[in-house]
Amino acid sequence: MALLVLKFGGTSVGSLERIEAVARRVAALQQAGHRLVVVVSAMSGETNRLLGLARGLDLDAPAAETDVLLATGEQVTIGLLAIALAKQGCAARSFTGEQVCIHTDGHHGKARILSIDELPLQQCLAAGQVAVVAGFQGRGPDGRITTLGRGGSDTTAVALSAALKADECQIFTDVDGVYTTDPRIEPKARRLPRITFEEMLELASLGAKVLQIRSVEFAGKYRVPLRVLSSFDEGEGTLITYGEPSMESPLVSGIAFSRQEASLTILGVPDRPSVAAQILGPISDANIDVDMIVQNTLGDGTADFTFTVNREEFRRARALLEQVADELGADCVQCNDSMAKVSIVGLGMWNHPGVASTMFTCLGREGINMQLISTSEIKISVAIDEKYLELAVRALHDAFGLAQGGDVAGMNNN
Amino acid sequence: MALLVLKFGGTSVGSLERIEAVARRVAALQQAGHRLVVVVSAMSGETNRLLGLARGLDLDAPAAETDVLLATGEQVTIGLLAIALAKQGCAARSFTGEQVCIHTDGHHGKARILSIDELPLQQCLAAGQVAVVAGFQGRGPDGRITTLGRGGSDTTAVALSAALKADECQIFTDVDGVYTTDPRIEPKARRLPRITFEEMLELASLGAKVLQIRSVEFAGKYRVPLRVLSSFDEGEGTLITYGEPSMESPLVSGIAFSRQEASLTILGVPDRPSVAAQILGPISDANIDVDMIVQNTLGDGTADFTFTVNREEFRRARALLEQVADELGADCVQCNDSMAKVSIVGLGMWNHPGVASTMFTCLGREGINMQLISTSEIKISVAIDEKYLELAVRALHDAFGLAQGGDVAGMNNN
Repeated sequence: MALLVLKFGGTSVGSLERIEAVARRVAALQQAGHRLVVVVSAMSGETNRLLGLARGLDLDAPAAETDVLLATGEQVTIGLLAIALAKQGCAARSFTGEQVCIHTDGHHGKARILSIDELPLQQCLAAGQVAVVAGFQGRGPDGRITTLGRGGSDTTAVALSAALKADECQIFTDVDGVYTTDPRIEPKARRLPRITFEEMLELASLGAKVLQIRSVEFAGKYRVPLRVLSSFDEGEGTLITYGEPSMESPLVSGIAFSRQEASLTILGVPDRPSVAAQILGPISDANIDVDMIVQNTLGDGTADFTFTVNREEFRRARALLEQVADELGADCVQCNDSMAKVSIVGLGMWNHPGVASTMFTCLGREGINMQLISTSEIKISVAIDEKYLELAVRALHDAFGLAQGGDVAGMNNN
Repeated sequence: MALLVLKFGGTSVGSLERIEAVARRVAALQQAGHRLVVVVSAMSGETNRLLGLARGLDLDAPAAETDVLLATGEQVTIGLLAIALAKQGCAARSFTGEQVCIHTDGHHGKARILSIDELPLQQCLAAGQVAVVAGFQGRGPDGRITTLGRGGSDTTAVALSAALKADECQIFTDVDGVYTTDPRIEPKARRLPRITFEEMLELASLGAKVLQIRSVEFAGKYRVPLRVLSSFDEGEGTLITYGEPSMESPLVSGIAFSRQEASLTILGVPDRPSVAAQILGPISDANIDVDMIVQNTLGDGTADFTFTVNREEFRRARALLEQVADELGADCVQCNDSMAKVSIVGLGMWNHPGVASTMFTCLGREGINMQLISTSEIKISVAIDEKYLELAVRALHDAFGLAQGGDVAGMNNN
């Protein structure tokens, strides 16, 4: 009989009927003898409705008061779920973030969890009750309500799992697990029964929207066994594991992508060691994250320098770069704000150089130009023109045999 | 420069525009140098919306979880008002019932305030901030959220005024004060600039909906200076005073009424001392409040016995009374479920017997039959057929000269 922390997101509790469905599922698990902590988000649409009220008064509303407002979203859900559980004959008790004592720092709107008093929850569980906890919220050092930022309910669930040493943290979402890539682009995409923490981290940060990156990091830090499941269907979902991949692990586990990319190139800058810092300094001073970077030395004492930023930062980055180009006496600045990034991710690839060549051959065969390339031990990312994105994802999914579980003939021999 | 506790009800904060209007009013008072605590209700309609959600899951939802749900209504308002105040340049901070530490008993849905920690509010006021407090809610002995029942925000405001020893507690409503009677029935009704606590208590309990009876009782216990004002207009409103009425106080201050009355008569019961207890015992055992009572001894060893109940309890009371009639061998039970009650209220009347005769003469002249009469030191109530209610209110308002401020010629000489 396990201690499980279950988390249901906004879509899963988006109506009274869905809350009743969640209650039936939870009641069945309790009947089976498990001890349960259930973390819930606000009903879908509620957080935006509340934000709309705040912005109707002040587009720049004080964050501390916005948190007071937003925290009501989850509070409504815990009350409703506890009512639905009681109706199912399942003893339950709701807890706000304040009542569980989820202590956070004072950064309203994006607070970080500092510590959790497990006692109130342990008493609730010892009394045979299901603990229903409001996600996304905590209590700041001054006793005020804080929120953890979008997707913070995942973080709440993982943090409670760590504090209570839960056997498993189960995140219920509107997809039934982590896929080899987005099934809306590649219908042959396959659910992964298991994935390593490191791969999950890459997939989350590269744009797979299944889990918040912060909650995955948090899970890794405390080695919380994490499972992604569907709220609407039965099934085993995807378990995130820690430790060495088995011998049979496929080289490549999945294809991640992100559409919101823009690239900026400064042509003909002096080729000297300090030039990268001179170019990127003003960009990072303006708090703009630079993702991929490549420098092309031309042999005539000059170089071309290219990097990518999120498309939302594109205009600001271009203005800064044009100023830098003037100062450096560069030839010109070239931009492309319709880039995408495609990445192959897999813990098995780091000592298989053939993976990169399979990727580049595949894209080349489709006539897709790679503007930038970056690699790490467990991923290779390329920036391409956005119009080729779907083609690239499908071609790579096929090239690495992901629909069949990896291990394409010839690849393992490289 | 005074310490004021202001309370704005659901209609006064029913939209973003109205919240902005409240913020302007509060900011102006702060500019004038007052220290301010503002208590707010949920936006109008919000409490019913939340109750509807709970009842959509379970008509008999657990009270503790319903409180978790309902408390979000006021929490939304405090967040929004604090945001609107900040936008006006007025430093403000919101407090939930839990954060103010309004300690209550554990009766969810109708909790009573036990004590208040003034410290958090005093620190807020000392820092020059307006304290914005969620009405209607507190913290039970087990740390759970409690609510005080409908109209509980008035009670919160009065309790905070008592705890902070405020100079005045101002209740902003959708009427501009306490009137001599309901202006929808008697257009000549006049706002009373002052009214004594005892009169207010009678008016509140007799059906004038301006203030919750519990909050008036609470105010009386701690002698909190209470003022009723309009949220929408300027004006002095009505001040509720304590202590002796002045020599110039009118005999009658106002006419209260209630429509929801029903009368029950049991005819021909044995005229012996214990009969009243035999008749009313089963009624009170069934938790039905009996209001007016009259016993008519007939001289033949029998009596008729009449009493009134709230119309909602009428069917239950009749069923019980018919059983009692059988047991006592009474002749029969007669009922009237379309009764109304009209009362004249005034601290000046207790030693002026002429007041009663003026009332009875007035009603008799209009052909209105009084089925029951009850009196106390500061009021006389009569039960009449509901169809005469408006006529009776207007005739009495005129007979006691209330449109002119009382003191009708001839009355003071009785």
